[in-house]
Amino acid sequence: MDLKALATAHPDHWSKAGAIRALTLDAVIAANSGHSGMPIGMADVATVLFEKHLKFDAAQPTWPDRDRFILSAGHGSMLIYSLLHLVGDAQFPIEEIKNFRQMGARTAGHPENFLADAIETTTGPLGQGIANSVGFAMAEEIQRATYGAKVVDHHTYVIAGDGCLMEGVSQEAITIAGRHKLSKLIVMWDNNNITIDGPVTLSDTTDQVARFRAAGWDVQEIDGHNPDEIDAALTAAKKTDTPSMIACKTHIALGHAAQDTSKGHGALTDADAAEAAKKAWDWPHAPFHVPEDVKSQWEAIGARGADARRAWEERFDKMPRAKRETFNRALDLDPPKKLSATIKAFKKQMSETAPKLATRASSEKVLEVINPIMPETVGGSADLTGSNNTKTADLGVFDIDNRAGRYVYWGIREHGMASAMNGMVLHGGVRPYSGTFMCFTDYARPAMRLSALMKQPVVYVMTHDSIGLGEDGPTHQPVEHLAISRSTPNTLVFRPADTIETAEAWELALTQKETPSVLSLTRQGLPTVRLEHKTKNLSAQGAYTLVDAEGKRQVILIATGSEVSVALAARDLLQADDIGTRVVSMPCMELFAQQDDAYRKRVLPGGAVRVGVEAGVRQGWDQWLLGERGKWGKADFVGMDSFGASAPAEELFVKYGITAETVAERAKALL
Amino acid sequence: MDLKALATAHPDHWSKAGAIRALTLDAVIAANSGHSGMPIGMADVATVLFEKHLKFDAAQPTWPDRDRFILSAGHGSMLIYSLLHLVGDAQFPIEEIKNFRQMGARTAGHPENFLADAIETTTGPLGQGIANSVGFAMAEEIQRATYGAKVVDHHTYVIAGDGCLMEGVSQEAITIAGRHKLSKLIVMWDNNNITIDGPVTLSDTTDQVARFRAAGWDVQEIDGHNPDEIDAALTAAKKTDTPSMIACKTHIALGHAAQDTSKGHGALTDADAAEAAKKAWDWPHAPFHVPEDVKSQWEAIGARGADARRAWEERFDKMPRAKRETFNRALDLDPPKKLSATIKAFKKQMSETAPKLATRASSEKVLEVINPIMPETVGGSADLTGSNNTKTADLGVFDIDNRAGRYVYWGIREHGMASAMNGMVLHGGVRPYSGTFMCFTDYARPAMRLSALMKQPVVYVMTHDSIGLGEDGPTHQPVEHLAISRSTPNTLVFRPADTIETAEAWELALTQKETPSVLSLTRQGLPTVRLEHKTKNLSAQGAYTLVDAEGKRQVILIATGSEVSVALAARDLLQADDIGTRVVSMPCMELFAQQDDAYRKRVLPGGAVRVGVEAGVRQGWDQWLLGERGKWGKADFVGMDSFGASAPAEELFVKYGITAETVAERAKALL
Repeated sequence: MDLKALATAHPDHWSKAGAIRALTLDAVIAANSGHSGMPIGMADVATVLFEKHLKFDAAQPTWPDRDRFILSAGHGSMLIYSLLHLVGDAQFPIEEIKNFRQMGARTAGHPENFLADAIETTTGPLGQGIANSVGFAMAEEIQRATYGAKVVDHHTYVIAGDGCLMEGVSQEAITIAGRHKLSKLIVMWDNNNITIDGPVTLSDTTDQVARFRAAGWDVQEIDGHNPDEIDAALTAAKKTDTPSMIACKTHIALGHAAQDTSKGHGALTDADAAEAAKKAWDWPHAPFHVPEDVKSQWEAIGARGADARRAWEERFDKMPRAKRETFNRALDLDPPKKLSATIKAFKKQMSETAPKLATRASSEKVLEVINPIMPETVGGSADLTGSNNTKTADLGVFDIDNRAGRYVYWGIREHGMASAMNGMVLHGGVRPYSGTFMCFTDYARPAMRLSALMKQPVVYVMTHDSIGLGEDGPTHQPVEHLAISRSTPNTLVFRPADTIETAEAWELALTQKETPSVLSLTRQGLPTVRLEHKTKNLSAQGAYTLVDAEGKRQVILIATGSEVSVALAARDLLQADDIGTRVVSMPCMELFAQQDDAYRKRVLPGGAVRVGVEAGVRQGWDQWLLGERGKWGKADFVGMDSFGASAPAEELFVKYGITAETVAERAKALL
Repeated sequence: MDLKALATAHPDHWSKAGAIRALTLDAVIAANSGHSGMPIGMADVATVLFEKHLKFDAAQPTWPDRDRFILSAGHGSMLIYSLLHLVGDAQFPIEEIKNFRQMGARTAGHPENFLADAIETTTGPLGQGIANSVGFAMAEEIQRATYGAKVVDHHTYVIAGDGCLMEGVSQEAITIAGRHKLSKLIVMWDNNNITIDGPVTLSDTTDQVARFRAAGWDVQEIDGHNPDEIDAALTAAKKTDTPSMIACKTHIALGHAAQDTSKGHGALTDADAAEAAKKAWDWPHAPFHVPEDVKSQWEAIGARGADARRAWEERFDKMPRAKRETFNRALDLDPPKKLSATIKAFKKQMSETAPKLATRASSEKVLEVINPIMPETVGGSADLTGSNNTKTADLGVFDIDNRAGRYVYWGIREHGMASAMNGMVLHGGVRPYSGTFMCFTDYARPAMRLSALMKQPVVYVMTHDSIGLGEDGPTHQPVEHLAISRSTPNTLVFRPADTIETAEAWELALTQKETPSVLSLTRQGLPTVRLEHKTKNLSAQGAYTLVDAEGKRQVILIATGSEVSVALAARDLLQADDIGTRVVSMPCMELFAQQDDAYRKRVLPGGAVRVGVEAGVRQGWDQWLLGERGKWGKADFVGMDSFGASAPAEELFVKYGITAETVAERAKALL
């Protein structure tokens, strides 16, 4: 590249972009770690985007109708940190840049949404940002259809790298976006032909332009260092009626000795090379110093959107009050006031009618009363709508000609679905839930972890949650997936025993503001076990005594979900032998762990043997069986210690010994 | 479709395909579950493939040079079961068809490789079969380059459905195949435009033809019910120098009332509709009855390859004996005799030199002695070669012009990599290992579960296994991933403490025949803790006393990996206070659990308090802390109970309290 020519042709642009490059270089040198090459290579694209296209107000980074900027190539985090510092975001003074990657800094190794207002999402695990962006763009469409374009009308811009495009989740994402013609989604691909291992061609020769076109996208190819081309491409991208990809040919680590090499991808810390690079950029300033004229140009960019933001506020204030309240309530993730009463009334009715239902069907019944009073819910399924029971009559289907539709046919794309749901909550204004088989939490796993890390209350409706799935066999039968979900910090895993606990689980899931929930639901029918109506949400305490012992308490059976009724039947057998047996239903271990000692001791007192019952692996159970007031040698677990098999469900429960008889025998053996 | 015209134009073909259709219908009716539509729709393609192209010998289904047939759309399992029955595979008598989806049958809901010789892989989780197939095709290339085309020269045929193509892993798979011009891979896409939720267009409008071409594939589009077109397309596909995709336009549930509907995708059990369908197929026979003339035509197909197989055996016998032995040894997954002595010598040297190394670097040192004596190993990384330390000098790089290369640059495709590794072992003759960051086991998870379920000894080299990764932050720091890996049945999770345990872990991983291994390795340097050379592989017992207490044993510290040296330092602190402390290194919980009671009791005797130390979540630990001979109230755990943060590693260990001081304090608090 002829950098002199670039500088001469666009001197103002060049110095603004130079500020990004220099701050990046300085921060990585100070941290002695990080990724220099990508921010340096994409500085021109980012500068034009922020200067001429991105609708934002640095003083109000959470303004609801702002454009969203997503750095999918999250390792290039100094790009976004430099930008936020330069435009005058108050959370990013120069000290933050100097503290890049240090303890307590907002400038973490990868962008983390919970550390700063202007960081829309957490990226770094590749492909997640671009997949989130699909959810951002869908949420915008839904909100716009709901509230009108005067109040909701913004774009989602993404910078994605080769890594993002190689990850499979990106294919799921771009085909969802293409199918739904999410025209306000614009992806800028940092086409630099470099990955960590070497040139992209070492591992990939995909024609990305053709690939995106095959998915229904508009594609432009430009020189990613030419501000005019960048500007023209962004202008054109906003006019298409499909999502847009702009392939930006760039040089990683432009102007540095490591330019166009995989070394340039990483931390460029050599002092001499840094000096030479700054010379090439015509940047004679001290480390971390941005001269006043450049800084003021950037700050003007940061203030550019203030008028638009104020005008929006005026328009917003003209909306009918009820609409405004709903808009803000949804944005704040507050459930409607009616939710609690609705759930109570539903529970009362169910205790009275005591239906025998699979909890997936219970879940549908609950959604039938929730969805009408929570217009912010958006449901979906990864091509298992009839099996996951996630669709209720009133939702409508999200589609090109029905943007207000609240049900998404995600297709066979569990990962893309989960990642898009993250994007929806991050965008704000909608509360997504969607389903697949519990076993396929495996496919969604990277995004489910990010729901937890990002503190986003996504609801995962995971049905067919054990060998109770039956004939489909071990590829479809979860055994370790409850343990996997429970092992993840900041995740609530609910395994309700009947329709009433299912309603309680939904209430809890939909009142979370910072925690995702996994609802583990059965394929097979279950009796109602909570026959006496309780106004209180008993699942909120995680576990509770469902039926106490008659006579002296010798045994405590602890069970979840479909195994609660097994435990109740085992109790009948034990009580018939005059063995006093308590049954504890434990729909949510995480919430039980949060209770105080006194409550936990009341539910699980000492002096009785314990048997845990769950059609999954034991991992995670020992804290309740051996811990608390239990005693080694006096506890057992009835569950799975292998994969399942293909056969009718009832036969499988017998084969693997998850029966009332086994539970009673094991309990007796401990006495 | 004009079925009469089809029948008239190709009467022999029609009756052979009719047998597949009728058996499928009958079996699903008998089971009252399963998927009828796909086998009925793809019967024509499968018939032509088996009759005219697939190289196989039904009497010898494991003949090494057979073509591989992979049913990626595994829910259509009755297609493969019908075919195997019809061609006379001894494992599939008609009773198996009648027992479809019943307890103990080979005819499980989805094809399971471990139930029958002719089933090459386990499918059902969508996208896995097509991703496995890339590994099959790579293994064939590597073997052909190694042993010559006289001994290895076969194709991999795949039937994939819309679900396979929507899953992100298929994009990873097809772009790997395209990059490497795996020309002997031929995918037949069942283009029936139906998924469970409805028409494919509900969720997807991707131009699959353009998408595969963008990935470097040859694509043909045909009528999937026209035997001449099918035959011609397969003939042409074998001649390309790229992988081939044949888009077969088909009608799901052809000839049934549910044809071309999503209902047709599932179990078609209606008796009247079945009768009508059989009439449309011109199939007047009783359920499960295949008339002699049709059966004999099929059996002739099953025997068609016997001559080729015998000729191959003759050619194979002419290979030099050493080559034959290596070929067979690798196929049988037997390690070379030298392995044990090589590891012993290596360990001795390491005990003497006591290097301070990250275990990822230890792993590289081990591979440097293993790879030269195990020509069957194939290494790789998902674009983290320098970080995973998986590449040794002698491997060479697998590429279009170097098919004997034993190192694969997988690109940023953890899932595709893992699934391809499954395919490699399933193919036979190679032993794959590959790496990524431990945190990204999330991306590979669906395939890792299948390694375990399919009993394939893949080795996952997962580095950067804790907050010790440092500045990259919580998106890259595993905390729950040890628990996740350990929760999975039939998986060995190794977390070695130093170079010597790393060598032992590799030896154990490479001697497994039916169990995958996860090697959890550090980024950060660790001291050698096994300073006294032991010939025996101590890690084989899962845990062992590394240093015993001096004086009365009051405390047992149990640690893994990087925390073993933390435990040793804590022991120094405790012993300085005259508190006798044993340190147990526990590199593999699963192997320890397999030891007899006496050994376990020797390592973890009662009468001492216990503290577990591992920079991960507690889940999975309580069995060793509270269980065995431990006692509630007298155990504690030092580890993580939240996500990590971005900062230098040493600071993170202090922040989260994973230090010798904390461990010593916690132990004292228990006394």
